[in-house]
Order: sequence, then structure tokens, then C-alpha cells
Amino acid sequence: MDFIGRHILSVDQFDRVGIERLFEVADRMAPYAHRGRITRVLEGAILGNMFFEPSTRTRVSFGCAFNLLGGEVRETTELKSSSLSKGESLYDTARVLSGYSDIIVMRHPEAGSVAEFATASRVPVINGGDGPNEHPSQALLDLYTIKKELAGRGRGIDGLRIAVVGDLKFGRAVHSLLKLLALFEDVSINLAAPPGLDAPPDILATLTQAGHTVSLHDQLNTGIHHVDIVYVTRTQEERFPTQEDADRYRGLFRLNQSVYTENCEPNTVIMHPLPRDSRAQANELDADLDQNPNLAIFRQTDNGVLIRMALFALILDVADEVDDHARPVTWYTAKRIPSVRRR
Amino acid sequence: MDFIGRHILSVDQFDRVGIERLFEVADRMAPYAHRGRITRVLEGAILGNMFFEPSTRTRVSFGCAFNLLGGEVRETTELKSSSLSKGESLYDTARVLSGYSDIIVMRHPEAGSVAEFATASRVPVINGGDGPNEHPSQALLDLYTIKKELAGRGRGIDGLRIAVVGDLKFGRAVHSLLKLLALFEDVSINLAAPPGLDAPPDILATLTQAGHTVSLHDQLNTGIHHVDIVYVTRTQEERFPTQEDADRYRGLFRLNQSVYTENCEPNTVIMHPLPRDSRAQANELDADLDQNPNLAIFRQTDNGVLIRMALFALILDVADEVDDHARPVTWYTAKRIPSVRRR
Amino acid sequence: MDFIGRHILSVDQFDRVGIERLFEVADRMAPYAHRGRITRVLEGAILGNMFFEPSTRTRVSFGCAFNLLGGEVRETTELKSSSLSKGESLYDTARVLSGYSDIIVMRHPEAGSVAEFATASRVPVINGGDGPNEHPSQALLDLYTIKKELAGRGRGIDGLRIAVVGDLKFGRAVHSLLKLLALFEDVSINLAAPPGLDAPPDILATLTQAGHTVSLHDQLNTGIHHVDIVYVTRTQEERFPTQEDADRYRGLFRLNQSVYTENCEPNTVIMHPLPRDSRAQANELDADLDQNPNLAIFRQTDNGVLIRMALFALILDVADEVDDHARPVTWYTAKRIPSVRRR
Repeated sequence: MDFIGRHILSVDQFDRVGIERLFEVADRMAPYAHRGRITRVLEGAILGNMFFEPSTRTRVSFGCAFNLLGGEVRETTELKSSSLSKGESLYDTARVLSGYSDIIVMRHPEAGSVAEFATASRVPVINGGDGPNEHPSQALLDLYTIKKELAGRGRGIDGLRIAVVGDLKFGRAVHSLLKLLALFEDVSINLAAPPGLDAPPDILATLTQAGHTVSLHDQLNTGIHHVDIVYVTRTQEERFPTQEDADRYRGLFRLNQSVYTENCEPNTVIMHPLPRDSRAQANELDADLDQNPNLAIFRQTDNGVLIRMALFALILDVADEVDDHARPVTWYTAKRIPSVRRR
Repeated sequence: MDFIGRHILSVDQFDRVGIERLFEVADRMAPYAHRGRITRVLEGAILGNMFFEPSTRTRVSFGCAFNLLGGEVRETTELKSSSLSKGESLYDTARVLSGYSDIIVMRHPEAGSVAEFATASRVPVINGGDGPNEHPSQALLDLYTIKKELAGRGRGIDGLRIAVVGDLKFGRAVHSLLKLLALFEDVSINLAAPPGLDAPPDILATLTQAGHTVSLHDQLNTGIHHVDIVYVTRTQEERFPTQEDADRYRGLFRLNQSVYTENCEPNTVIMHPLPRDSRAQANELDADLDQNPNLAIFRQTDNGVLIRMALFALILDVADEVDDHARPVTWYTAKRIPSVRRR
Repeated sequence: MDFIGRHILSVDQFDRVGIERLFEVADRMAPYAHRGRITRVLEGAILGNMFFEPSTRTRVSFGCAFNLLGGEVRETTELKSSSLSKGESLYDTARVLSGYSDIIVMRHPEAGSVAEFATASRVPVINGGDGPNEHPSQALLDLYTIKKELAGRGRGIDGLRIAVVGDLKFGRAVHSLLKLLALFEDVSINLAAPPGLDAPPDILATLTQAGHTVSLHDQLNTGIHHVDIVYVTRTQEERFPTQEDADRYRGLFRLNQSVYTENCEPNTVIMHPLPRDSRAQANELDADLDQNPNLAIFRQTDNGVLIRMALFALILDVADEVDDHARPVTWYTAKRIPSVRRR
């Protein structure tokens, strides 16, 4: 697949070659993200970071990734501070905003909105999340994290054994990740969800058609045996018809250290797309795992910066110039090491 | 007129020489805005982009213009996130904020507020819109667009034939544009408004005293014959006493392709200060015109970046240094051409 | 004290040596803040400017300070645009956000929240205000202002005579300033508060244990005799149980020119942490003092930029490299002189 000048709207655009190219570039971004070196390859370029729905993590991650390449960021947050509320169409918004920047990241609460916006945009658009639909950079950073976590063990995505647990009905991160896994070979997938929050049938079909082994579980404990990765999700409460509907699922699937010790292999890696819901009644991933070296959730978000830098570099066609004129970082960074996995 | 270190608060400050100087500098900004070259002439300078009223378009346009000159942008959005809500005077706000940046753009919902702020500011202030009063950079970009659209036809602002249609009572963009036109020679102006939304008498007086020909129309169709430009405005619903008052005007004046074909000359240029209200019941400028090469509305917003770059460059006295050490853009920009007028 | 890589959470961390080091670096920042020179010493560094409570002044001041050192700023404003509202713990927020930037400034409405955040952060954190608790950079800039205002008179912080007036119960700025004064010698302090808004006993104890002279007043007029500095605070209305409780104190202590002339020495310097409440019924510091050359309130906020630049430079260990490769400012700055004290 070709990245140059392309919109990134969906994981469906990716093939295996594209993913491998992306990951190879992401690897090369590490010295910059981890503050060993700085590059100014995008000095003078402008990112339009257009968030029409609240998001701290994703917005700041994209913005930092662009800054780390030397570019500037102009930002919008929240629907109400936008002309959309004066009856402006997405077409008009896109025509106008695409005159202001070199590339746009857009988040919007409605499914399909970012694709509609991209159609009218004169610059490349990255989908930063369009409601219940897609959030491709999340799925890509998840997959990249799986690859990196397993690399030290001589294992890879081909042949992966993974459990995906929690709200598999509404979790867009999970849906996209499973679609990406379908591009690889011989993956064994445990899907563990409370009854009623099962993965959609089309996702199951995609996985089985790809020749993967899928097993369904309605209990957390039985679903997480014999896997390399357990990927936990929170209940997407905001997608339920009523809060009461959501409340019925609160706290049903909770991974903590004792459940982990009892059911997982000693090195099973724990992932989560974050935020995790740490309120007592929810708590799908307990804080008593925070010292577990296999908890990879903060390495995941760190990897998000690498993936987003790689997307920018590939789309704007500077991936091979990033290292030109790179300079060492000259300020204090001793603590600014990524959260390292101790073995 | 002199730009260096001056506040830009009103179109009343401009004379013809000043406008021509501004447009000449704006022309020279095109290679930077259209991503052929980058300049760092304002590297190290800071814009305080102070928006105490929501605005995506104007805020981002000013911010990008400053970034394109190499400067940094610090931003404030929305009244409630400001000390103004703790009873702080505009005087204090201005004294404080003007210690933080080299230049300030300010939008505020109250007429006269930006001028009051400027009195206390220690750095130049550009009015980014003070409620119903003024928004000078909009009028300047509109006039600049008229000049550029007509240039290819050997016509100019002197001798212009223009129709201004829609809500001429509350539209500040229109008021300011008409004031600027009064500085030129022999302009013929059709003012077409639904009864009750007519242009204020003082604007009419200014135009006729300048020797221009003004004709009044209460129908859209008759108002747009024999003109070089038709400038459409939306009903400024937020300025009406009640929504019911505004609703009476919804949809009365609608320019679409068939109205255009029937009444306009084949090359009449269509302008609009945006946002246009695309809700079915409003729709003062129909989407069926989007493929019409004479629709200049997105060229207008593109021109806004040039005008704002030129204002910054002139006020901060770097207009003649912009090209020093300019560098070519080295990232992907193939799609980043301005919306071109096909003839 | 050592600054490199350290969190700045409380004035309690500071000793006299640390303060003097900070002030010496702040002095060296003046040419950059006052736009005589630019430095790019932090080019490529990123500040995470995380404001989970509204603040224009402090947020923009920190952001500009970082820009003035050449760094980039990624920003968050307001609680609701944060994952905190999805039940995310401060621990998680800190682990994630600290992967995005080189240093973080955080404001949060809850006392202790920033310290909790810092515990989990992988990069240095500066407390930008944690509710009623601490706002150390404000106290440091206040102390720095005292030093600079008195320097021209051959007086210093040792031997200082200061009146602190207004709401001494809830004003965190005052509490922190008084703690810092306790580090110096032979300070004479008048505390003047309306009955019920007196300074907390532990602050009094700290001052008397440091050997300082403290006198208590329940009237403004008697409290401001024979002092070098009168430090005025607004009633912290948002910290009162009800608005009625706050209203009882409105307008009780009002410093204006005639009160000043009658009670202060001719050169008594007037300070205020801002914002001052200029509504008629509050008005603790009258606008008729705005032309008084001893009104130092805007010099205070200007000094805030110097102190914040110095904090960044010291924490990130670039204080001695700031002047390397400094360049002159080449744009218009004639008006951009700091608000000068005329004598």
C-alpha cells in the first residue's frame, strides 16, 4: 500500500506490507520519541488537530508526534466552539480547514463523519476516531505493541495466542484490532465477554475466514488460559441506551493479580486501550497489577507516539529524511525513558 | 498609512495606499501559504490568539498565518476559561496578556471591547471580531478576493459592479466591506435584502457620498443582474431579538444554480463570508453551486491566510525580510494547491 | 537545593540558596522575555501544559515562558475534555501524559492532586495550582518582585517591612509567600484581615518561629503604615461555603489612592496576585491607583514569565546554555518594554 498523500480512515486500508512498512518506520522514530535525538524534518509544516469530541490522550499524542518531527500544531477542541453549530456542512468545514494546514487529524462523534470530511479535504486526513466506528491509529499501536512485547521471546504476530476480554460489542478498538489480526497467519483468539456484550458476527466471520482459531467464553477466567496476550477493555458505558443497561455489566469482568496468577501463563502480557475505569464498581483492570512487569498498558500509549510519528512521516513522505541533520537532545531527560519491561 | 506597531481595530483606519500596500505584501505571501517555500522570519515571536467567543475558522486562520511566518501561538478560547469571569477588567486583562506575547489577536462578544483592550495593551492588537461591530481582516480578505478574482479579466475594484444580498442589517462583514469599497472609484452596488433587513442608512450615505451608484432591491433575482460579484450573506440569527424573529427570514433569499443561470452573467463571481447555513430551511447558498467555477468562497478563506500573514508582517515590520533565507518545502504537498478557479 | 529533574510542588521545597539561584537565573532571562534576544535552547522540547481547571493568565504565562526558551507547548484545558471523567485515575493519567512531553505543568482543582500525579509521572511536574493548596510559582514571582522593586532603594528581603491585607484565610498566594518570607531575616509583617478572614495559626507560628515581627490588624488603614510593600488580595469568593458568606466581606478592604496617600509611605509598593475584582461592589484595589508608579501589579505578572523560564531552565538543566547562539530580535518591539517603574 502507498501512504504518500493518503487519508487514513480505516484499518481496512491496511495490508500486511503496509503494516510492516509502518512498523519499520515506527521503530526508527524511537530515538526521537525517547528523547535521545531531535529532528526538524517537518519544520514549517502545520498539523490541524481537529477534535470535535473531547479527548486528551489521543489529541495530545498526535500533537506531540507532530511536534517531535519539528512541525507546528493548530488545534480545535469541542463541538460547540465550531461553526458546525451554525449549520455549516462537513463539506464546507473540510474545504476551509484544509486550506490552513498540511495534514489534518480529526475526531468527530458521528460514524462516517471523518470519511465524509476527507472527501472534501485538500490535504490528507487521519481518522482520530469517528464515534462507534473506527480509530485506526489505536488498532495499529495495539498491534505494534503486541509485536514489540513478543519480540524478546522469539514470538511474533503469526502464531499469536491472544485473549480479548470485556465489552466486545461496543469496543471499536477491539473490532479494529481483530480485523488487523485477520491479516496474519495462524492466530488463536479467545473472545471472552459477558453475555450480551459479544463480538459482532461479522468480526467472527472475518477471523474464521482468515483461517484463525476462535473460541468463545462467557467467563473471564476460562478465557485467559494459554495466551501470550490478554487484551482487556472497559465497558463502553456511553454507547449503551441507558445507564441502567450499562450498570448491569459493571464489575463483571475484573482482571487483578490473583485472577492473573491463577489463570494466565507467567509471562502473559496485559494490554488495554485505556482509559481504564478505576472507579471501585468498574475496575476492569485492577491497580494491584501496576507493578506486574507484564502490564504493557503504558508501553502501549508510548508506542502510540511512535505509530503516529510514522503515519505522519509516511503520509508526508519524509520517512527517509527524518535522520538527516538529527541532533542530540541537550536538556535533562534522565527520567524520560519509556516504561521499560522488566523480565 | 503606517502599519508598524499599530493596532488594527477597524476598516476605518485604512486608506487606499494602505490597502494597496497590504495586498502587495499578501501577494508575496502566496508561496509560503501554498507550501512552495517556508520562512522563519518570526522564529521566536509569540502570537497571543485570544478568543473570548467561539470561532474555529478565524482563530485557526490567524494561528496558521503566524506559524507560516515561523512564529509560535499561545491561545485562549471561550469566556468561561478566563479571569474575566472573576470580575477582572479588560484593562487588567490587557496589561497582563500584553506582557506575554509580541502581538495579540482578540475576539470578544462585545462591541468596542477590543478597542478598549488595545488602549491598555503594550503590544499591537488586531481585532478578530468584536460582536456586531467590526472584523476588519474579513473585509480586507473579501476585498482582496474581489481584486484577485477580477484580475484575470482586466477588471479591478475601480469600476466594480457588485451585488450584496441577504441580511444587510446585521451582517458586520458586509458593512465593513462596503466601507472599504467607498475608498475606490465608480463602484456600482446593488443592495438586495428582504424587507426589514436593509443596510443601515449611514452605510448608504457613505457610499453615495463617495460618488458610487447604489440601487436597492427587495428581491434576490432582480438584485443580481449585471454584476461582476454577488456577495451572499447568511441571516445573522444570533443577533435577532428572538428565534421567531429570525425564522421569518429563513430561506427567503436562496442562491442556487438555476437562480444563478437565470439572473447572473456567465462569469459572475459568488462570494460569502462563511459559514453558510446548509440546513434545508436556511440554505442561502445552495450546494448545487459547489462545482461552479465562479464559486469563490473557498478561495476567499484561502486568501484570509495571505491577508493575515501580511498584517502580521507589516505590523511587526518584517515584510521585507520574509524572503530572506526562505527554503523550499520538502514534504508532500501535491494536493495542497489552493482551490483553483477553472475558466 | 537541586533543581535538575525535580518536581516543583510546594514552596516548602525551597531554601534560601535555591531561591537565590532561581532569582539569578530569572535575571538572566530578562533579555529574552523583554524581546531583546531570542534563544532556541529548548528547540525540540515539549511542555505538557495540563490545566484541569480554567486559568488564562497562569496557563499562558507558562506556555509563553516555554516558547521563549524555544520549546513547543501541548495544552489541555478544562476537566470535561479529559479522560478523568471516564473514571481514569490520576496515576494512569500521569503515566500516560508523561510519555508525551519533557516536562509537565499541571493545574487541578483538588488539593494534593498534583503531588499525586507527580508520583506517577516519568517527567518533572510543576504545580500550577492545586485548588486551595499551593501555587508555588506565584509565591516565587511575588518574592522576586519584592526583591526587584526594593533593589533600587538599597533595600532587600532581609529587613523587609510588608503589609499583607485582605482575605488571609483562603488566599493560597499569601500563605505561600509568607512561608517563603520565613526563610529570610528580620521581616516585619502586618497582617490585616476582616474578622473571620484571618491567617491560619500555623502560618503565624512559622513566621514567629523564624524570628519575624508579626502584628495583626482588623482594619485596612492601620495595617498599611510604615511598610515597603502592601500586598493586597481579593476575597476568594469561590472558596466560601455560600455566596452569602462571601458577600459579607465584599468591599470591606479597599485600597484606593486616597487611602494610600493618607496611610502609606510615599514609595510603598502595591502588589496583588491578580486577578483583582473590579466590580463596583468588590474593588479591593481601585483603578485610581493605575497611574501610581508604585503600583507593581503588572510588573508582577511580567516577572512571572522570568520566574517560569528560570524554573524550566533549571529543571531541564539548560540554565547555562540559554545564551549560547542567542540572536537579536529582528521584528518590531518598540512598545514591548516591560511596564517600567517610574521614580
